Amino acid sequence: MAPSAIPSTVHDGEQDLDLTSSAIDHRLAENAQSNGSANGHGASSNGQGNHVSQPNVRELDATKINYTFTKEPRDVPPPGVHTIDDATVCTDHMITVKWSAKSGWATPELRPYGPLSLMPTASVLHYATECFEGLKAYRGFDGKLRLFRPDCNAKRFLMSSMRISLPSFAPAEVEKLLLALMAVDGPKWLSRERPGSFIYLRPTLIGTQSQLGVQAPSEALLYIIASYMPVMDSPADGLKLHTSPNDMVRAWVGGFGYAKVGANYGPSLLATQEARARGFGQILWLYGKEGYCTEAGASNFFVVWKTKEGKTQLITAPLDDRLILDGVTRRSILQLAREKLSDEVEIVERKYTIQEVMEANSEGRLLESFAAGTAFFITPVSLVHHREQDVQIPMGKTGDGGLYTLKLKGWLRDIMYGNVDHPWGVVVQEEQ
Amino acid sequence: MAPSAIPSTVHDGEQDLDLTSSAIDHRLAENAQSNGSANGHGASSNGQGNHVSQPNVRELDATKINYTFTKEPRDVPPPGVHTIDDATVCTDHMITVKWSAKSGWATPELRPYGPLSLMPTASVLHYATECFEGLKAYRGFDGKLRLFRPDCNAKRFLMSSMRISLPSFAPAEVEKLLLALMAVDGPKWLSRERPGSFIYLRPTLIGTQSQLGVQAPSEALLYIIASYMPVMDSPADGLKLHTSPNDMVRAWVGGFGYAKVGANYGPSLLATQEARARGFGQILWLYGKEGYCTEAGASNFFVVWKTKEGKTQLITAPLDDRLILDGVTRRSILQLAREKLSDEVEIVERKYTIQEVMEANSEGRLLESFAAGTAFFITPVSLVHHREQDVQIPMGKTGDGGLYTLKLKGWLRDIMYGNVDHPWGVVVQEEQ
Repeated sequence: MAPSAIPSTVHDGEQDLDLTSSAIDHRLAENAQSNGSANGHGASSNGQGNHVSQPNVRELDATKINYTFTKEPRDVPPPGVHTIDDATVCTDHMITVKWSAKSGWATPELRPYGPLSLMPTASVLHYATECFEGLKAYRGFDGKLRLFRPDCNAKRFLMSSMRISLPSFAPAEVEKLLLALMAVDGPKWLSRERPGSFIYLRPTLIGTQSQLGVQAPSEALLYIIASYMPVMDSPADGLKLHTSPNDMVRAWVGGFGYAKVGANYGPSLLATQEARARGFGQILWLYGKEGYCTEAGASNFFVVWKTKEGKTQLITAPLDDRLILDGVTRRSILQLAREKLSDEVEIVERKYTIQEVMEANSEGRLLESFAAGTAFFITPVSLVHHREQDVQIPMGKTGDGGLYTLKLKGWLRDIMYGNVDHPWGVVVQEEQ
Repeated sequence: MAPSAIPSTVHDGEQDLDLTSSAIDHRLAENAQSNGSANGHGASSNGQGNHVSQPNVRELDATKINYTFTKEPRDVPPPGVHTIDDATVCTDHMITVKWSAKSGWATPELRPYGPLSLMPTASVLHYATECFEGLKAYRGFDGKLRLFRPDCNAKRFLMSSMRISLPSFAPAEVEKLLLALMAVDGPKWLSRERPGSFIYLRPTLIGTQSQLGVQAPSEALLYIIASYMPVMDSPADGLKLHTSPNDMVRAWVGGFGYAKVGANYGPSLLATQEARARGFGQILWLYGKEGYCTEAGASNFFVVWKTKEGKTQLITAPLDDRLILDGVTRRSILQLAREKLSDEVEIVERKYTIQEVMEANSEGRLLESFAAGTAFFITPVSLVHHREQDVQIPMGKTGDGGLYTLKLKGWLRDIMYGNVDHPWGVVVQEEQ
């Protein structure tokens, strides 16, 4: 525990300022390098961290999955059943891959879904050394099974893992593991008889080292599970948001709001629960004394308004201050809107405040709003409650979302369910 | 998932501002109330949260422990051995208590130390619904076994649990569970033959509900383990600190820096690891553009300096902005210093900046500094590195800490190891 001698070469003012980002860049660069080497034996080490430089430190390799099929296959629950006894219903199998600083990544296992065994001293149970991803597999109307942009989730998974001091890996290997799990469980759990349905995939990475010292874990477990999940994008009367209280800030500049780490979720539950008890669906998280709109619950937040000059704008918070999650749905919406709507709508990523939203409302310029994320897909927002005031937001002619909300939703759904052929929809080669 | 109707009575501007603290106050008040009722059947419910109002929701009750002793007792490792195969060495037993929103607290179990079984969907593995405490049991020079102020840890444990949406309990029950575990494992694992040694106790509370929806868990597990831990308060040449980088802020106003939740630890590992690679022991966490000194690693940070007017001051960061942990060692130091040193030293809790520390150094007014916490006890700080500059701090005549650092350390040690009789030292009634 005693600090070693201070190397004189590192007294560099610039390094003092960006300790974190330089550490991440460092690790990512090493990772990119080792991915160029022969898979399975590239050294992903910087000699400083939990990646010890050893010739036998193995890379994550999805081509070598060990298959152990369940002997107790479970019944698929009826449509609409997502939990049994308050527990999420998962498919028959899961993928697990152990990692240690000493040996690197072990052989991936596809095995029966079941409990994990962790020592009470495991890092994840004390220090929140955990990150995850969420994406869906969609049973297309053409009968094919697709993942939606799994490359984006896999890359963000790596970024989150770096931020929370968990190991690095080649994102493409995680993508292959996702496809492998769906190849096995897809045919039964997302049957061809139920086109237009989806299943939720949850890649997770946790620090398992059973040591209480506060340090980057030298052992970890990556696992992927697939579960049922309710359709959440069409609540009756739309999603109602309560702005965040003064005494709770979700994320902050210099923090980790952009990473999908557990530490962003647990601390927000209290305010969310209180808001739900008051009849709202989610918190609209504001930032700073200016009250910048950042996220809606754990989703990105979009507004469509007319500017004072009369232009129609689709606006959402920017990524550059790293407060918000770089959502895959968010990114896809912006890409599609720029491609298909730019003649009629200006697409803007900038900081904007709750006051601007309220002013637009009072001047009749507020057109639409929606929350966007994998879980909520695109969910129209009908109301924002802020400091004793209700901002009612139009829900469109049909009452289930504004014009652009529904257009974007339709375009994305067409890609997800294979109504159009698009590179974002990655087809699973199913076993049966 | 659809929000219910908004009750018109709750449109209260004040409630909008303090959603979080009112939710916590709410829960704590309920807890205090139910503790006044007959133990075992008080309702700890507010009807809104995960405490469902039911007459059969049981309180945590430490008088009803179920004992299952190990059939495979392990050997006590030689002095100085704290880990085996990178895993922390724990004692033969642990305490576990299950909680569910439906039934409340189950009967506490004292049982053989061993792995926990968690579903891959367990809340704690995804959303960091976890909090913990750290305190030590000390084998006194009079042969007695003592806990140091366990009431303080138990109360903070409750506060952390509330902040992270885990269940409430009467802190006194946790204190009793700590004493029960030490009564059984103390005689063997902290032998009377080794006076002046300690063991580390880690009460932990985790959300176990196996549901992926982002929500307050309706099932939880409280457990207490006891482990060996190295002596960390006397590193060769003192503790060397590196100030936090611009791109990493540990805690922020409106956040949860004051709570002992996992979410405060994992995100800080990256900077700590990088600082260690550069030869420093811990990060000195600064806050805001002013650069306020807050914590040293996961410890409180103290400075002794002369003011410009020539007064000797012991200074540490205040609690009122809720950025830092309300450390039990910190609190004890302040109490002892006020009691025993106030004739010669002014005791100050206020915001102070790294610039003030550097100015005191350049003017020869910097006398001592130390980090204080349960793990680090009182560890003298010999150097602070900030933006290319090294601030050397005197380490006293004997080189192992300044005058007041050693005085405070001695007074506390005397209480912990029973050299003086003091109400802070709570004697364990051992089984043998």
